[in-house]
Order: sequence, then C-alpha cells, then structure tokens
Amino acid sequence: MRVYNFSAGPATLPLPVLEQVQQELLDWHGIGSSLIEVSHRGPHFSAVRDEAEARLRQLLAIPEEYAVLFLQGGATLQFAQVVMNLLRGGSADYIVTGAWSQKAYREALRLAPLVGGKVRLAASTEESGFTSAPSPAQLDLDPRASYVHLCTNETIHGVEWLDLEPLLATGVPLVADMSSHLLSRPIEVRQFGLIYAGAQKNIGPAGLTIVIVRRDLINDPWAGTPSVMQYALQEANQSMLNTPPTFAIYVANLVFAWLQEQGGLAAIEAVNRRKAEKLYSAIDALPLYENRVAKPWRSRMNVPFRLKDERINDPFLAESDAAGLKYLKGHKMVGGMRASIYNAMPEEGVDALVAFLHDFAARHG
Amino acid sequence: MRVYNFSAGPATLPLPVLEQVQQELLDWHGIGSSLIEVSHRGPHFSAVRDEAEARLRQLLAIPEEYAVLFLQGGATLQFAQVVMNLLRGGSADYIVTGAWSQKAYREALRLAPLVGGKVRLAASTEESGFTSAPSPAQLDLDPRASYVHLCTNETIHGVEWLDLEPLLATGVPLVADMSSHLLSRPIEVRQFGLIYAGAQKNIGPAGLTIVIVRRDLINDPWAGTPSVMQYALQEANQSMLNTPPTFAIYVANLVFAWLQEQGGLAAIEAVNRRKAEKLYSAIDALPLYENRVAKPWRSRMNVPFRLKDERINDPFLAESDAAGLKYLKGHKMVGGMRASIYNAMPEEGVDALVAFLHDFAARHG
Repeated sequence: MRVYNFSAGPATLPLPVLEQVQQELLDWHGIGSSLIEVSHRGPHFSAVRDEAEARLRQLLAIPEEYAVLFLQGGATLQFAQVVMNLLRGGSADYIVTGAWSQKAYREALRLAPLVGGKVRLAASTEESGFTSAPSPAQLDLDPRASYVHLCTNETIHGVEWLDLEPLLATGVPLVADMSSHLLSRPIEVRQFGLIYAGAQKNIGPAGLTIVIVRRDLINDPWAGTPSVMQYALQEANQSMLNTPPTFAIYVANLVFAWLQEQGGLAAIEAVNRRKAEKLYSAIDALPLYENRVAKPWRSRMNVPFRLKDERINDPFLAESDAAGLKYLKGHKMVGGMRASIYNAMPEEGVDALVAFLHDFAARHG
Repeated sequence: MRVYNFSAGPATLPLPVLEQVQQELLDWHGIGSSLIEVSHRGPHFSAVRDEAEARLRQLLAIPEEYAVLFLQGGATLQFAQVVMNLLRGGSADYIVTGAWSQKAYREALRLAPLVGGKVRLAASTEESGFTSAPSPAQLDLDPRASYVHLCTNETIHGVEWLDLEPLLATGVPLVADMSSHLLSRPIEVRQFGLIYAGAQKNIGPAGLTIVIVRRDLINDPWAGTPSVMQYALQEANQSMLNTPPTFAIYVANLVFAWLQEQGGLAAIEAVNRRKAEKLYSAIDALPLYENRVAKPWRSRMNVPFRLKDERINDPFLAESDAAGLKYLKGHKMVGGMRASIYNAMPEEGVDALVAFLHDFAARHG
C-alpha cells in the first residue's frame, strides 16, 4: 500500500511514472536491456535525453537563447559553479531569505576572491527569522553587479518569491535556485539569467541537476573551472562531456510527460494553489498550529508549521505516521513540522492531512 | 528477452539485482514508498548507505585508515578533484597509457598552476599506440612527488595494469582511476593513496562515483575547492554534505550483495579470467581478427579487437546484433570492435560471442 509521503526531498514521485519504470526496468522498449544498461551515446538514451529537453522546453516555454543542461552535484555544487562561470572579475549581489540562499552566499563569499571577484549581501531577512522576502526598501542592489542570486523557494523556511518585480528594475541577470519549486507553476524564463534546480523534488530522483541559462552569459568561465563544471563546454556536448546520470534523466523525462498529461504548468499550478490554500487555511484556523511566514510569501510547496505546545510533537508524529501521513517532522534547523506538497502529492493526500490536523486538534486542543 | 550487452558503460547489470529493484520499486520493504522517494537522512536510506559501505569494505578488504565516499560527477570530475585536494604546492607525476589517463593528465596540467602546484609526465605509451603500460625503464618517477596518477584499466584502449611493482618503490601515493575494473578482482588497497571509479561499469548505474582514500592525504584541500568536492568535508558528512544519488547507491548496494553471493572478488576474478582467456584465445586463433595489446597488459574487462579487413565491419556488426550480441562497435577513437565483459556479463555471453567469432570467420574468412 502506498502512503502519503510529505518528504522534502527526495520526494514522492507520480505513481504512473514509477509504474512505467517498473514495467520496463528489465527490457526497455523491447531492446532486451534496461535503459540504464546502455551507452549514453547510443540511439536509445540519446533519444530519451533529447525528448526530455524538448519536453522541458515546452513546459517552461524556454526561449531558444537559453541552454538546457542536465548536470550532477546538486544545488550545492551550483553554489560554486555559478561563481566560477559567471562572476569573472565582477561583483555579485546575494539575497538571503533562508537556509539555502545563505549557504549559496557563504560558498560564494569563500570562492569569490579566488576567482578574482567579490560578493555583496544585497539583503537578508535573517533578523526577522526568515519569514518573508525582503521588502523593496530593504533591497540594496548594485546596478553594475554581474548577477543577483536568490533562492526563489526556501525549502526549510517555507518562503517563496511569488513577485520578482522589485528585482527586475536594474536589469542585472537573476540567478535563481529553484530546486524545490521549479515546474510547480509557469515562470517567465526571460526574467532570469540562470535557473538551477536539484531534481529530487518536482523533477525526478536525486543525482540530477537542471540548469537553464542564457547562452551569452557562459562564454567566459574562470580558467580554474573543472571541465565538467563549465556550462559552455557542457552545452557544446549536449551535457555529455562525460557519462550523465542516465536513470535520473530517464525518470525526469517521464515526469515531464506526466506533467504534460496533467495539462502543463498552468493546470498543475491551479492544483498546487488549491492544495496550499487548504493546508494553510487549516493551520491558520486551528489554534493548536501556527505558520509564521508572512502570507504573501508562503511557499506552495513546503509548508512548515509548529504545534504551539511542543510537548505534543511526539504524539503528533506518531499518530500522523500511523494514519499513513509520513515524514512530517520539520527540519532540525526550525523544528516543528513540515509538509512538502510537491506536484506528485495528490490532492487527496492534502485532504487527508487537513482532516488529520482537525482530528488531532479535537483530541489535543 | 534479455540480450548479451557488451556496452562499455553504462553496462549490463546482474539480472537478479534488476529483478529486485523492479520488485520493490513502488514499495520498498513495506514502507509504502520507493526507496528513491524518501529522505537521504532518514532511517531507510541511511541503513542502505551504511550497508553499501560495509559491503564494499568487506569485498575490497579496505583498511580502517581509508575513507569510502559516494560522490557524483564521474571520473572526469575526479580529474579536477584530485588536483584540488591532493596537489597542494607540490608536483604530481602522471602516467599516460590511453585515452582516460591522458584526459586526467590534461585536466591536471590545466588546473595545477591555479592551485599552486605542477604536473609532470612520468611516462607515456602514446608513441607505441597505447598497447601496453610503460616498462620500468620508461618510467621517470619523481620520489618527491605528491602523488603518481594512473588509470589502471583503460576502457578504450584495453590496457590493464596487472603488475604495479615498478610503481611502488618510491613510496609516493598512487592515485588510480579504476572506473572500469574496480571489483573485478581483489586488489591491495594499501598500495594506493586514492582509488576512484565511476559506477557505470562494475558497480551500478551512472551518476555515482566511488572514492577510497587514505584519510591522512585529504586534510589540506586547496582553498578554492567547492565544498562538495572536498573529500574531508564529505568524509565528515558520510558523503551527505548534500543529497547523494540515492538510486545509484541503492543499486550499488545490491550489486555488492550479489558479488558476495558469487563468493567475493577472488571467485569473480576466476570467472573473469576464464571469460577473458576464452575471448582473447579466439581472437588470436582466428586470422580474421586481431588485438594489438601486448599480452601481459590485456584488459580482462574491455577487449578491443579489429577485423583485419575493415570492409566487413558492417556485416560483423549487423550479424552479431541479429544474434543478440549487442553494442560491439568499438570506440570511435580506435575503431573496430570492443567487447566489454564486466562482472555482470555471464560466461554464456562470452561463449556465445566466441561461437559467433568462429561462425563469422568461417563465413567471411
């Protein structure tokens, strides 16, 4: 029996995708081998890779002037890779709105001097406990910056940028870590210079990193950049400078097809919006629970919440687990609970969680 | 129907492993989720990761003073990572015996000045067409080198180091790319400072890189090394500084268990030796074919061979393919044919190939 899996990542995958992988695992499309057993340069995998790129371009309406790369190393390697490829001798602005953008900022601070550039903190919401993005007045943007880095959805703190207008005036390219909400709704790719995302939330299994980058930005990597970390070199080699993570790309391609079957990103956004509204409404309505993120910045993907009486955390986790609502324990950095409700979490799963929140509150309120 | 898959990598996997993955893909051990859908930090995946490390340590008899890391980026990222972590201000010796050690050497040459070190070519067999390792007289080893880098099995050129004695006298740590033969036979880990291997040959799916390294060598990475590329930091975090490639580690763990069931590496070596002898014997005996690698250096894993009359390459490939002997086309760098006969290639597959070599020779000889 499948449970409702609220893990923040690696995370629940669409059941039809897993079923297809299972069905063709020993013999993919009649070739007599698994797709994960054949050369990445052969016709079978190449076709899958090309299809994955085409589907991703269609889903996100990625303009032709952007490269799509399938890489490894996760967002954390991108923290370094962005600096090595885009900073040159310039200065980059970093906006810190939670744990992930802070990690990116710290890695950039450490590496920038070595590549001959520098890094500025353009805003941080740490003092207010990472419960919103900065207001326009809090932003100190350098119009000559090489790029502005932000994390558009903070997986741990549950803060999502739903309005990027204040960042667009300077025309400096935005570099966005979208790991935990890419593909959850339509975006305007031209608002960004570079988008990156670890796959293990809305895209597929861990071990794949998607990069979408404007080609004119990647032609001058720092000379010390390892070959596989040079965006331009990977672009010139269809992301196959060396063996790519073929299983993860294969599954991602099936997830992209599943998203197309759902009606694309506008359709999935409508479901995601409804799921998030149901969950936040219950948290706000029931005095047992709280979510401290300012309403305009509440993530539709990652919903952290606390029991005001922390002594009942353990019964909450034990009872929800017994009810088939799994992995609701919050990240240790913020404590409490967290429900990650990615694309693949069925609305019925959120309904079940909401019913449980009510039921638990009735018994412990 | 499963075919005999001679792909050089990604490569054929043990059928019982694929069957187990298939069986538990939707619900791993009754948890109601796939193992690839749950957190890498949770109890389910952590147990698998720990088991994988324990099994690998048992199979290779890895001494306690060595760390075992599960990383990403393939051997090609290791070409840079080794330089960043081990070179310091020193000089490293590189031995070039084929395409892969040459790539490693070129990456090191490019990066060494940036990390404040240098790189020497200690030997190259390029002039003789990469058909052997260097003789002791050809080796120009620096006893003060930080390390000596070599590729102990050249996947493209089919050259395997079966005798490392000439490299051990100086006491300089050996750094070995073992991507295409790690786990094919017992090795003496203490002969090496660092061993690395992309998984997609004898270990599991693409997207995982195994590193086995003496802990005392990794405490002083170059300051510009990206965090996820610092061996010491990954060691301190059980290779989970960020999300690891959980599917690949899960499958690798099953491959390790399968190897244990086969009787371990001494037992698998006996089979591999027999498979290789059968294949080389046929190539040597039949005048239609040739393998130019000097006999003491012939790889037991990757067997490149040529049809002396190249005009019958296409019929050879078409007829072998029709006989269920797949992916025998050689790498474009050397042309001809190549049969990769990793651990998971059944002896029956080699027997079928040998029979085909005879049959084809009888018809075209």
